[in-house]
Amino acid sequence: MNTPHILAFDIFGTVVDWHGSIVAEVQALYPSVDANAFALAWRAGYQPAMQRVRSGELGWTRIDELHRLVLDDLLPRFGLAHLSEPQRQHLNRVWHRLNPWPDAVAGLTRLKTQYLICTLSNGNIGLLTNMAKRAGLPWDCILSAEVFRAYKPDPRAYLGVAHTFDVAPEQVMLVAAHQDDLAAARTCGLTTAYIERPLEFGAGQPKDVSPNPANTLHARDLLHLADLLGC
Amino acid sequence: MNTPHILAFDIFGTVVDWHGSIVAEVQALYPSVDANAFALAWRAGYQPAMQRVRSGELGWTRIDELHRLVLDDLLPRFGLAHLSEPQRQHLNRVWHRLNPWPDAVAGLTRLKTQYLICTLSNGNIGLLTNMAKRAGLPWDCILSAEVFRAYKPDPRAYLGVAHTFDVAPEQVMLVAAHQDDLAAARTCGLTTAYIERPLEFGAGQPKDVSPNPANTLHARDLLHLADLLGC
Repeated sequence: MNTPHILAFDIFGTVVDWHGSIVAEVQALYPSVDANAFALAWRAGYQPAMQRVRSGELGWTRIDELHRLVLDDLLPRFGLAHLSEPQRQHLNRVWHRLNPWPDAVAGLTRLKTQYLICTLSNGNIGLLTNMAKRAGLPWDCILSAEVFRAYKPDPRAYLGVAHTFDVAPEQVMLVAAHQDDLAAARTCGLTTAYIERPLEFGAGQPKDVSPNPANTLHARDLLHLADLLGC
Repeated sequence: MNTPHILAFDIFGTVVDWHGSIVAEVQALYPSVDANAFALAWRAGYQPAMQRVRSGELGWTRIDELHRLVLDDLLPRFGLAHLSEPQRQHLNRVWHRLNPWPDAVAGLTRLKTQYLICTLSNGNIGLLTNMAKRAGLPWDCILSAEVFRAYKPDPRAYLGVAHTFDVAPEQVMLVAAHQDDLAAARTCGLTTAYIERPLEFGAGQPKDVSPNPANTLHARDLLHLADLLGC
């Protein structure tokens, strides 16, 4: 393969454990709620909310605001219609407080020694920055759909990384735990690395992590990716 | 003062020594050239080039491209009209290789322990990222005029930082070695810290660094700023 110059990382599910983090916070704050169902329902609202932006129904809207729209819709279904505005704001910011998978900080630290490592997430810049600062994720640069005003899988997001760093698309490798994200990146000429995250949706809903030969690399986690890339 | 949540740093002259870095590279590459005059002339083309974007004469154009326009104009005046395309590209990227002032890395490292530290530069994202990686500047986030599609002193750049992190303008402190940048930030409601950089234009052209009481803070360098902010 062409050696990539830039490693661009998907975040939710790939670098951080959104399901486990939300379950833990909801259990602590609202013990009567089915936290697993709550986390899954919140995340299930994510793509449809972004689709409202992609389709033009909504103007450019950041993920913080989209998460809040989904949350407000969700609360009555889980017996939480009484939450105050400050409580809603606090809960909505749980996406800024997601915990990294156990291998993430060590893996990124190794990868950073030989590559430029950046985010390429649909999460907004502020969310990704707060998350990185809290979790110790050592990004060289935080890129987001917000920079390109285009949500993945819009080609402008993937090609935006190459343009930002003045490299050819094939010199950018997208690292993600989602085959659809990687497939869209390949269409734009990026190389791709799949990361197994079998427990992304929790232990009750294990994910198929079988290899797709279309990807350049297939790694168990970010430490394994560092091995594969010789870091 | 209100304690700032976010410290946003001007870069060229404030965090890195553009004059000394360019002089050193030009002296090494082209010993017959008056490197001091060359550096000053290149930088002097910076504001007029951005003004062509601000005025709408040029569409959105990154600093890398503006630096190159100025460079191409400059080379014949310094007997360097013969430079090849690869030589021009290499020289233009000197702005990615600027050296930090001696206090910068240590000062930022201390400030980062208690504040979110980001860039707010007219330099493009790729330039700022390459510079940070080479110099070890430990940014939490790289913000740039490129994110907001507006060059300082456009209010959208200053207010963009507050919007990015969902804070009030007065919770952002702009840190810069230029009174005009700080004055524009104050107009937007930001707090301001002036950094003395008496040798920004070289030892032959010392700069007036006298305090302006309109600034919230006045610091000799970034270590002194860390002292003033209790880091």
